[in-house]
Amino acid sequence: MAAEGKGVLLKADAIAETFRVEIKSALSNASRPPKLVGILATSASPSKFYAEFTKKQCDALGVEFVLRRTGQAADEALAPGEGVEEAIIEANEDDTVDGIMVYYPIFGAQQDHYLQQIVSPFKDVEGLHFKFHYNLYHNIRFLNPKTLASSLPTSTSNDTPPAVNDEPPPGYVKSILPCTPLAIVKCLEYVGVYNKLLPYGDRAYGKTITVINRSEVVGRPLAALLANDGARVFSVDIDSIQEYTKRPRQAGESEQTQRKYFPRHVVHPASPSLQDVLALSDVVVSAVPSKEYKVKTAWLKDGCVCLNVAADKNFEADVREKASLYLPTIGKVTIMMLLRNLLRLQQYRSLMGDAQSSS
Amino acid sequence: MAAEGKGVLLKADAIAETFRVEIKSALSNASRPPKLVGILATSASPSKFYAEFTKKQCDALGVEFVLRRTGQAADEALAPGEGVEEAIIEANEDDTVDGIMVYYPIFGAQQDHYLQQIVSPFKDVEGLHFKFHYNLYHNIRFLNPKTLASSLPTSTSNDTPPAVNDEPPPGYVKSILPCTPLAIVKCLEYVGVYNKLLPYGDRAYGKTITVINRSEVVGRPLAALLANDGARVFSVDIDSIQEYTKRPRQAGESEQTQRKYFPRHVVHPASPSLQDVLALSDVVVSAVPSKEYKVKTAWLKDGCVCLNVAADKNFEADVREKASLYLPTIGKVTIMMLLRNLLRLQQYRSLMGDAQSSS
Repeated sequence: MAAEGKGVLLKADAIAETFRVEIKSALSNASRPPKLVGILATSASPSKFYAEFTKKQCDALGVEFVLRRTGQAADEALAPGEGVEEAIIEANEDDTVDGIMVYYPIFGAQQDHYLQQIVSPFKDVEGLHFKFHYNLYHNIRFLNPKTLASSLPTSTSNDTPPAVNDEPPPGYVKSILPCTPLAIVKCLEYVGVYNKLLPYGDRAYGKTITVINRSEVVGRPLAALLANDGARVFSVDIDSIQEYTKRPRQAGESEQTQRKYFPRHVVHPASPSLQDVLALSDVVVSAVPSKEYKVKTAWLKDGCVCLNVAADKNFEADVREKASLYLPTIGKVTIMMLLRNLLRLQQYRSLMGDAQSSS
Repeated sequence: MAAEGKGVLLKADAIAETFRVEIKSALSNASRPPKLVGILATSASPSKFYAEFTKKQCDALGVEFVLRRTGQAADEALAPGEGVEEAIIEANEDDTVDGIMVYYPIFGAQQDHYLQQIVSPFKDVEGLHFKFHYNLYHNIRFLNPKTLASSLPTSTSNDTPPAVNDEPPPGYVKSILPCTPLAIVKCLEYVGVYNKLLPYGDRAYGKTITVINRSEVVGRPLAALLANDGARVFSVDIDSIQEYTKRPRQAGESEQTQRKYFPRHVVHPASPSLQDVLALSDVVVSAVPSKEYKVKTAWLKDGCVCLNVAADKNFEADVREKASLYLPTIGKVTIMMLLRNLLRLQQYRSLMGDAQSSS
């Protein structure tokens, strides 16, 4: 419980627990336990720790986890990342493997991004393939699993039924969402930032959210996801602030008067400063990979919700003087999202197998 | 001609000319002129200039060029990059379009890299899709055009015949190489760094080359390309120096004794400093996007070949005191490579069309 007058410190365990139960039940219905290959290519402690954590979670749930060490992780004399591409290809081509997770960072953002495209979309439990990002940015929630085999992004004209609720129509499955942004959304659902009384696909309507970080792995997909769910989002990086929203910014704006909102978010440059946007924000998510970076408690809106996604603490020690709820870490929820993706992808591949054998 | 005792200043015009003739002849045999769509989404002068330059070259050769302005390029009040993704999708889906080029940088390396994956590999004249990078890194020179439709990287086990010479075997076509690295190779062929007396695929053997820049767009693919062609390459970026080579580093090294060289390059961390590697280098290619960055003439090996690929001059004014040949800019060759890729992709798409109609 919170100290007198202080916000609540919320651990991720309870949030993760609901998904653990769901996954356990799904596993008991699976024809065979899914197999996840983890690829560790550096000797960086956070990656090693995360690999051990994955193994523990998989063991506890009955998922088969195989850790493949390569490069520096196999032998300190080797370079970080040596052999990682070969390990990915091998896992892509091994029919007994259902999911692949690679412990980043390895080479840096650009070369790691290349590696993320090499992982088969049918085994991409992290949801980092450009096809999944494309669907997220375009608010394409359901897809025909066959389209994962194509090098082209999902065609909005043919392949995408409208999402009226959380259930894909017959012949379609859910797109895979990147684990960390998805885990953040699940945390925000849990703490009531998403309102279930609002219609599906618009449950963050009325909320203003600041996301500090605009990487392709966390910040930009998260801002898009939240804006596609109805929130007004400020996306902050070192150089600029942008506003993500699917609502017309002014009443009566051009041709959009007839429409309550766009089918997906639109991005505009934003003129307010970080201090200005924090003063407006019901939720602040920070994912800055730096020990030094701190969100100033003095700038937060009284009663806001703060979520730290970075390995380092991006909020000051006194954050709960202003925040009504503070989540210092969400890793346990992220891993549940990854295992949920694994179960889904195992199913999508089996659908493809059925389609192939019946054709 | 060079001043007494000074290296030769080499303009790219003569190198570009040989390809212009080749392209003109290929165009005269084409069933219809290929159509290239340029997408300009910022008001940055280098991009505007490059778009005008593309148009001039296309007009002169009889290639249809359509410039699509979006975002800031269409209206100064709009944000840079607004609408660029929609413009790409539209060109992907337009059967009359044979090639798409996007004028980067737009959002920065990470988000631009995402956009590069959205372009259909069948229209990617710049060769920036991960599938083409994958082929380059793995020294896969020929491919079945059908494999471009798949979301998976080319399978080395099934889809790739060995490259014994420059001609793909029946049923296969050449993979598309990224324009800038390819243009650099063509310049190095022209100036005799590649030796035609050596066997195909190993013509840079014996040459030591330093490449300053390790981006996914220029430096890393270039280093891989040169090493796959037999050179010993030092890849230099801000943090580190790496050595790319397909030759075993020590005589009698492990199981490789039987083999003259690996089928593709291997990357090792390198301990020498920049000064050390420049002293060894027959060729220095610099592509650092900075006005301040200069390669020290004093560190160059006497008689080396220097190639500047950056928009700014990365070599000091007196570079020809050491360099036997200096190429200050290669843009005219790059555009020829782009147009060659356009002609090839037009052909690959028509092969796919034939295959579809006969199946």
